[in-house]
Amino acid sequence: MKLKDIGEFGFIGRISRDIRPGSGVVAGIGDDAAVLASDKKGFYSLFTCDMYVEKVHFTKKDVTPYQLGWKAMAGNISDIAAMGGLPRHAVVSIGLTGDEDVRYCDEIYRGMRAAAKPFKVDIVGGDTVTSPEGIVISVAMTGVVEEKMCVYRSGARQGEAVLVTGSLGGSLLKKHCVFAPRVREARFIAGTGRVSAMMDVTDGLVADLEKICAASGVGAMLFEELIPVSPDARRMKGEKTPLESALSDGEDFELLCVVPREAVAGLLKAFNKKFSVPLTLIGGTTDAKGIRVYRTDGTVDEPRYKGYDHFKSGR
Amino acid sequence: MKLKDIGEFGFIGRISRDIRPGSGVVAGIGDDAAVLASDKKGFYSLFTCDMYVEKVHFTKKDVTPYQLGWKAMAGNISDIAAMGGLPRHAVVSIGLTGDEDVRYCDEIYRGMRAAAKPFKVDIVGGDTVTSPEGIVISVAMTGVVEEKMCVYRSGARQGEAVLVTGSLGGSLLKKHCVFAPRVREARFIAGTGRVSAMMDVTDGLVADLEKICAASGVGAMLFEELIPVSPDARRMKGEKTPLESALSDGEDFELLCVVPREAVAGLLKAFNKKFSVPLTLIGGTTDAKGIRVYRTDGTVDEPRYKGYDHFKSGR
Repeated sequence: MKLKDIGEFGFIGRISRDIRPGSGVVAGIGDDAAVLASDKKGFYSLFTCDMYVEKVHFTKKDVTPYQLGWKAMAGNISDIAAMGGLPRHAVVSIGLTGDEDVRYCDEIYRGMRAAAKPFKVDIVGGDTVTSPEGIVISVAMTGVVEEKMCVYRSGARQGEAVLVTGSLGGSLLKKHCVFAPRVREARFIAGTGRVSAMMDVTDGLVADLEKICAASGVGAMLFEELIPVSPDARRMKGEKTPLESALSDGEDFELLCVVPREAVAGLLKAFNKKFSVPLTLIGGTTDAKGIRVYRTDGTVDEPRYKGYDHFKSGR
Repeated sequence: MKLKDIGEFGFIGRISRDIRPGSGVVAGIGDDAAVLASDKKGFYSLFTCDMYVEKVHFTKKDVTPYQLGWKAMAGNISDIAAMGGLPRHAVVSIGLTGDEDVRYCDEIYRGMRAAAKPFKVDIVGGDTVTSPEGIVISVAMTGVVEEKMCVYRSGARQGEAVLVTGSLGGSLLKKHCVFAPRVREARFIAGTGRVSAMMDVTDGLVADLEKICAASGVGAMLFEELIPVSPDARRMKGEKTPLESALSDGEDFELLCVVPREAVAGLLKAFNKKFSVPLTLIGGTTDAKGIRVYRTDGTVDEPRYKGYDHFKSGR
């Protein structure tokens, strides 16, 4: 049996089953970041990593080295934010062919530092190696979160509200390489103490909401007229409709969260007063399985956007 | 100017200059691991990462997947040990082609877990992506060290003794994929409070001793008759003499340390009583620049083994 037969998530399930977290591990594989006991009373430590491979995640034509560095760093910051935490330190493993211009490599690091600086993330070390077939970057990041503010994917209950920050779809590379990780927004949401589940949208709204649903044992419904479709998604001329883009495009790096219904009005009011990026109610959790999309024409879809599965298929 | 013109160490110098550690960073880029302020009084946190690329660090022919996983994990444990610390948690970014057999991938993780287990390292998360051109593994690891036991590359003074654990050279892949990281040995050495500088030998004895010398502003002399040449190095039939192998082969993962002369006798006695792996005096630090090797025939070499420079040249 080949890896591509079981797919990325089949393989992750396999290694998650096998690796038994030891003492001090509050939550291991399966969330945006691992949650670990901390020596600081009332706090957890967070630990995450992401890998970006040339010709899989990016091409040199479509992305500047600055954007590449930004994205590699900001993607990890977004993972820490999605737990309700603050990012702390990063180490960077980078594989380069050696044929790159030195200025190209400098630009990668300039992008990483620019993404890190607003959140006071220090790049404290790394490993620099040859990768003859193309650039590979892996950023690992630690973070910290108050125990009371740590939000998992698994806490959603049925009958709660589903909300998302910003707008979705049309993840043009240029936009998404210099996206702003929603750290302050996530801290605000987590700080209310009224959020049941949260993650960042990296594989697409439906695919990521399915992860929250699977971890929490609930289903969800989304309402077409509520979904904040991005201007980019409306502008794009491709096979997908703007709604399909908003439901299925990856790398939005917006926050997707589930909140008890009675907390929604207060949260929306407080959030939208404080931030320029909107927080929008888009649906709710149910006791059914899977995700249903209620269209404005009265029909109901059960979209099959499974997100990007490395090894298996496209979206 | 291309990256290969300035080489790995030129590039690392460039990014180290640029990245200014913030508050809480005791020592950043340039040692075996970054040293960070900890919330536990009297302790530091450690943070490191290493990347392994197929066809650069290994080939599928020469190494089993178990050995590959072992090496990726044990290499990081060795980095934490070289600071005098204890490893804690690991995250694993892995790029796979998708054509691998699932059992092959399982074996990589079995090797990682086997290397991690004796040191109570928990693998708490990771990222699994496609890498069409070959396997890439990046392991990032945190650790902890008592402030008093933390040992840097930069603490050596002239007139001190140079010691190494185990024997050197002939780093056959099979041996070096299941090497035992010297955690207990390093903790013992650091725990004496009498070690000025330490690192693990990954690029070769001379190349790595040069790093200690450069960081500390000293030179060093080595004595041929004192150097513990490994049986493998003696057995190998290649271009190198056994001594040259011991001086220049990388991936020994032994500990190289510098100790005040008055502490040597006591340390050697106590260490060699406690451990089966030997600790050997091999030379001393000087006020001259560079490394001199005093040969048994009375001649003096200034070997130019610069270690493996990714992007530039071979050893």
